[in-house]
Amino acid sequence: MEIFIELLALLLLTRMFGEAAERLGQPASAGEILAGVLLAVCVVWLGPTLPFLSRMAGSEVLEIVANLGIFLLVLSAGIEMEPREIAASSKRAMAVALGGMLLPLVCGFGLTWAFLPVFDQRFLLAFLAGVAMSISAIPATAKVLSELNLLHKPIGELILSAALFDDVLGLFLLAVLLAMIDTGNAPDLASMLLLLGKVALFFFITVLLGVHVYPRISRGIKTMEAAATEFSALAIVALGYGLLAELLGLHWILGAFMAGLYFEQSRVGFRAYQEIRLICTTLSSGVLGPLFFAYIGLRVDLQAVTEAPLFLLLLLAVALFGKLIGAGLPAHLGGLSVRESAAVGAGLSARGAVELVVLSIAYERGVFAAGDGIGGIASHLFSALVIMGVVTTMLAPALLRWTHGRSASGR
Amino acid sequence: MEIFIELLALLLLTRMFGEAAERLGQPASAGEILAGVLLAVCVVWLGPTLPFLSRMAGSEVLEIVANLGIFLLVLSAGIEMEPREIAASSKRAMAVALGGMLLPLVCGFGLTWAFLPVFDQRFLLAFLAGVAMSISAIPATAKVLSELNLLHKPIGELILSAALFDDVLGLFLLAVLLAMIDTGNAPDLASMLLLLGKVALFFFITVLLGVHVYPRISRGIKTMEAAATEFSALAIVALGYGLLAELLGLHWILGAFMAGLYFEQSRVGFRAYQEIRLICTTLSSGVLGPLFFAYIGLRVDLQAVTEAPLFLLLLLAVALFGKLIGAGLPAHLGGLSVRESAAVGAGLSARGAVELVVLSIAYERGVFAAGDGIGGIASHLFSALVIMGVVTTMLAPALLRWTHGRSASGR
Repeated sequence: MEIFIELLALLLLTRMFGEAAERLGQPASAGEILAGVLLAVCVVWLGPTLPFLSRMAGSEVLEIVANLGIFLLVLSAGIEMEPREIAASSKRAMAVALGGMLLPLVCGFGLTWAFLPVFDQRFLLAFLAGVAMSISAIPATAKVLSELNLLHKPIGELILSAALFDDVLGLFLLAVLLAMIDTGNAPDLASMLLLLGKVALFFFITVLLGVHVYPRISRGIKTMEAAATEFSALAIVALGYGLLAELLGLHWILGAFMAGLYFEQSRVGFRAYQEIRLICTTLSSGVLGPLFFAYIGLRVDLQAVTEAPLFLLLLLAVALFGKLIGAGLPAHLGGLSVRESAAVGAGLSARGAVELVVLSIAYERGVFAAGDGIGGIASHLFSALVIMGVVTTMLAPALLRWTHGRSASGR
Repeated sequence: MEIFIELLALLLLTRMFGEAAERLGQPASAGEILAGVLLAVCVVWLGPTLPFLSRMAGSEVLEIVANLGIFLLVLSAGIEMEPREIAASSKRAMAVALGGMLLPLVCGFGLTWAFLPVFDQRFLLAFLAGVAMSISAIPATAKVLSELNLLHKPIGELILSAALFDDVLGLFLLAVLLAMIDTGNAPDLASMLLLLGKVALFFFITVLLGVHVYPRISRGIKTMEAAATEFSALAIVALGYGLLAELLGLHWILGAFMAGLYFEQSRVGFRAYQEIRLICTTLSSGVLGPLFFAYIGLRVDLQAVTEAPLFLLLLLAVALFGKLIGAGLPAHLGGLSVRESAAVGAGLSARGAVELVVLSIAYERGVFAAGDGIGGIASHLFSALVIMGVVTTMLAPALLRWTHGRSASGR
């Protein structure tokens, strides 16, 4: 019975905050994480008097549900993208994506490294902070682009294909990071090469299956009942890829992502694609996503704000300017005006759900726990990175509207 | 990682058997349970040499997934029905439903009572067997009716509205049964009246909300984004009703069912209704249903066939003739020909998923465990009832085709 109270309370709270955020022109996810953070504050304040609240925060069912949420969020991200789009991206988009990824990665790494004391896991934690900074959220940005009528204009397409690259590379870097944890703290050249070989093997197998095998199978499926069969086939492929990734020592989210990526409209047909897409996005944005955001919000410790305010401010500055300059400069060199380039950087600065997936997975593997007894920012890094993710996700739409308004009126 | 192997193996196996069953003109669920039963045989034979198999049968994740499957199956059953249809059913349909429910209930109770030795839980187990016998499956029957072009003819509508009644009453009887377990073995008049009061209160609250409150709320929702908001609202209502049912000492499936029942097309609009229905049926028939069927199949012990063959045969005979006579006689008295009445009885004889939900919930509550040390059929009752459910689900389509063919050619 307690499961019902728990899920009901969390879902009701997150959805109310999510709806409120949407009405204020913010992404729903920002409101949903905020609900989780507020709950976390309640747990700290009222936990001793209301033991029910603390039990909720540590609930095993919530953990399973949150993992299901991650699975579906990453699968949906894959479904939204078409491998063709990635292959067809312009050199300019590649340059914007790489710049917008590398600058925040390097600056985030450097900043965190500088603030962390000398201890075993310093490199890992700093690298993780860099990876979290390098990500760009797609869904939140896409909504604002469509609202500004930019979605199908060159600048909108540039932002989206660059964000797509940053997500793929971010997930890939996370897999590398997690494998590094397994092999030990200071990876030597041989183990790094082995790891790269495994990643290459994983992509080789999944791309081969996606390009050459599925098109043959789905011709057989198309004649049968569509949605249920396609959905269970997708679930089987995602589970199989997840298993393959784990067998290779990588994380299962890579599998879920690749399964979604090769679920293509051109292969399964318009109707089945739209139906499966509807199912995955409704499940993740209607129920599992909000619960995942509550789960991660419950793990945030707002003491990070009072105990490490300077680090948090610098982190936010690096997160914003890293994308503005890192992505904006290549865009400007590629021929866009200064203001258009700023709009590109602003559009890429939201971190959104994928960054939270990365943080949550690292959290579960105990990466952040390494910093707990160390003091300084080491014990607040997780909370600081989540706050950075939420703030950039909330700022990006406003920034994009503002830079776009200026670039439009400047003409 | 083991979770991935487990879910992947089970989903792959059940879906293969399910697809094969559909190609043979059988309901997919029959093939999926068969896959579970075969796995159970493998566990018994190969379990000692392959400990992985036995671990899979006792997996906690599978139990959670199976419960999610039950939740969605019952929710979908509710969504498929419209409360208006129930209210508008003819007196003939009521008579067919009641006859088709009471005769199998009484005969199933009597047969099981006669075969069970004298012990504490004899009444409970016999009553449970009766409840399991009284149910009629809708989805499997509806498919055959539509294939025979009977779905929108009077006889098809009669079969479906009677099956609907039997399901609602079956779930209600299950709730009564489970509450009886909690209050003790021999329920006195006072506790029975209290229980009936609770059930009445539950239906009063949920019907009141469904008829008078939701129509006002959804007018507000309709203007916003449809599917995700409607889906999370439905999940919140289902969780809330489940909680209400549990608070009253009833089972949460009543809550899931009522939440689905008052999710009406006339209120939420055509598009949202179709989308949510697609999501729920795809989830339950594509992934969660098959896993639930595997879960229940894994709990079947085929020794029931060799150790209690007479009981099993009588159980099957009572299951079939109970529906044929119990539902067919009122149909005949109501003006249908003998062969049409036989078709009505045949159409109602499939037990399908709802019976398995009832058995699985009783199993989890430990009702069947009471018979374990008793000997005789007491320890095989669960397996015998599952086998009865599968066999009737597989026979019903053939019976319906056969009686319909005769009644059509007899004209």
